[in-house]
Amino acid sequence: MTGTLYGVGVGPGDPELLTVKAVKVLRSAGTIAHFRKRGSPGHALTAARPHIIAGTPELALEYPVTTEIAFTEEAYISAISAFYFAASESLRLLLQEGQDVALLCEGDPFFYGSFLHMYERLRGRVPVVVIPGITGMSGCWTAAGAPIALGDDVLTVLPGTLCAEALTARLRSNDAAAIMKVGRNLPKIREALRAAGRLDEAIYVERGTMLGQRIAPLSEIEVAAPYFSMVLVPGCKGRRVL
Amino acid sequence: MTGTLYGVGVGPGDPELLTVKAVKVLRSAGTIAHFRKRGSPGHALTAARPHIIAGTPELALEYPVTTEIAFTEEAYISAISAFYFAASESLRLLLQEGQDVALLCEGDPFFYGSFLHMYERLRGRVPVVVIPGITGMSGCWTAAGAPIALGDDVLTVLPGTLCAEALTARLRSNDAAAIMKVGRNLPKIREALRAAGRLDEAIYVERGTMLGQRIAPLSEIEVAAPYFSMVLVPGCKGRRVL
Repeated sequence: MTGTLYGVGVGPGDPELLTVKAVKVLRSAGTIAHFRKRGSPGHALTAARPHIIAGTPELALEYPVTTEIAFTEEAYISAISAFYFAASESLRLLLQEGQDVALLCEGDPFFYGSFLHMYERLRGRVPVVVIPGITGMSGCWTAAGAPIALGDDVLTVLPGTLCAEALTARLRSNDAAAIMKVGRNLPKIREALRAAGRLDEAIYVERGTMLGQRIAPLSEIEVAAPYFSMVLVPGCKGRRVL
Repeated sequence: MTGTLYGVGVGPGDPELLTVKAVKVLRSAGTIAHFRKRGSPGHALTAARPHIIAGTPELALEYPVTTEIAFTEEAYISAISAFYFAASESLRLLLQEGQDVALLCEGDPFFYGSFLHMYERLRGRVPVVVIPGITGMSGCWTAAGAPIALGDDVLTVLPGTLCAEALTARLRSNDAAAIMKVGRNLPKIREALRAAGRLDEAIYVERGTMLGQRIAPLSEIEVAAPYFSMVLVPGCKGRRVL
């Protein structure tokens, strides 16, 4: 009688952008689990909150470190690895009690994000159901009024952590791009866009669809938010709108 | 008192994958408009149907030609261009009567698709609101149980219409790929994957999240569906799951 782990995509931030299926799962789950930074209410929980029945038990899985430590540092890797192990064990215990657990995922569970670390540990051991969500990038290009791709456009999704040369090459050879993990990579991203001749097309979106949303040409941005920021380079330019 | 045009993303096909916001718009719209192939009920309408109040007027915008004519042929371009013009005029007349019109869009309105042709014609002339939807590719990788990207993976979205060399180069240089417009491009896509050494990783998904869904290793597929098929090459391989 093991419970089911639901990986629930909660979308880009606006509570109305959860799906009908996600809402149904939230309203029937025994526990709502979610990742969050220590000291933050958690963005996934904020998006899901209006749909959660008051009194449903919650399990906050709090990251032990912030993204300010480089991903490759051993201290980071060992701390986060121990954390993911402990988190998956907490979930497994609840599931083995027979409870269904809804684990909230910002955006789409299978498109980047922490859910994967739980999924790889728990699938095959407990029933897992994944409910897709609207990605953060869809939320951002919609908020910006910027259609991202049309017809035979190639779209590439780039982490801002790539080196400047790799970013430039990809910005040159693709029609459209969504650059994630902007934050302190902003100066490098700006240089790569300039080198690729695409700085003027780039749009900066911070907290897309959320409270405090900010949208501006990238060329006007001095400092980017560390996490909820994205740079969009729309395609559709030079494509024939029929 | 012009009405508002809502571009409503209806997601990948499963009616439960519409958002709360999309459902709200469908239930209050004066007319439900949708694109479809002649002779078909229309996939967008099928996904939205359970959420539409019986008796709401519908406007079917029927493509005059199928995708079987090459996109570059003049006959195709002039037929489809006249069609998009007439479709946008039908919408504009309803809006100018003061009606709100919900135009259904498969997947996400700003991610490929016919909505863009209406958006480019009507924005600035009538109020337009876009509601993002779950993309077909999110629906497909969820249905396939195939996480698409993690950490610093680069994901690229490729139209199967690209030439074999361009496909191969991009499959070699990216961690993850979603290849759309498969259909009769299947033999070329297969060859590109083989040349890039990635054929064994490729997953074929037909009608993801819809009735008649089919998922199999690409290497086992002989004939692909003309439209609702996609090839996924997941990243996450070789990435360290912490």
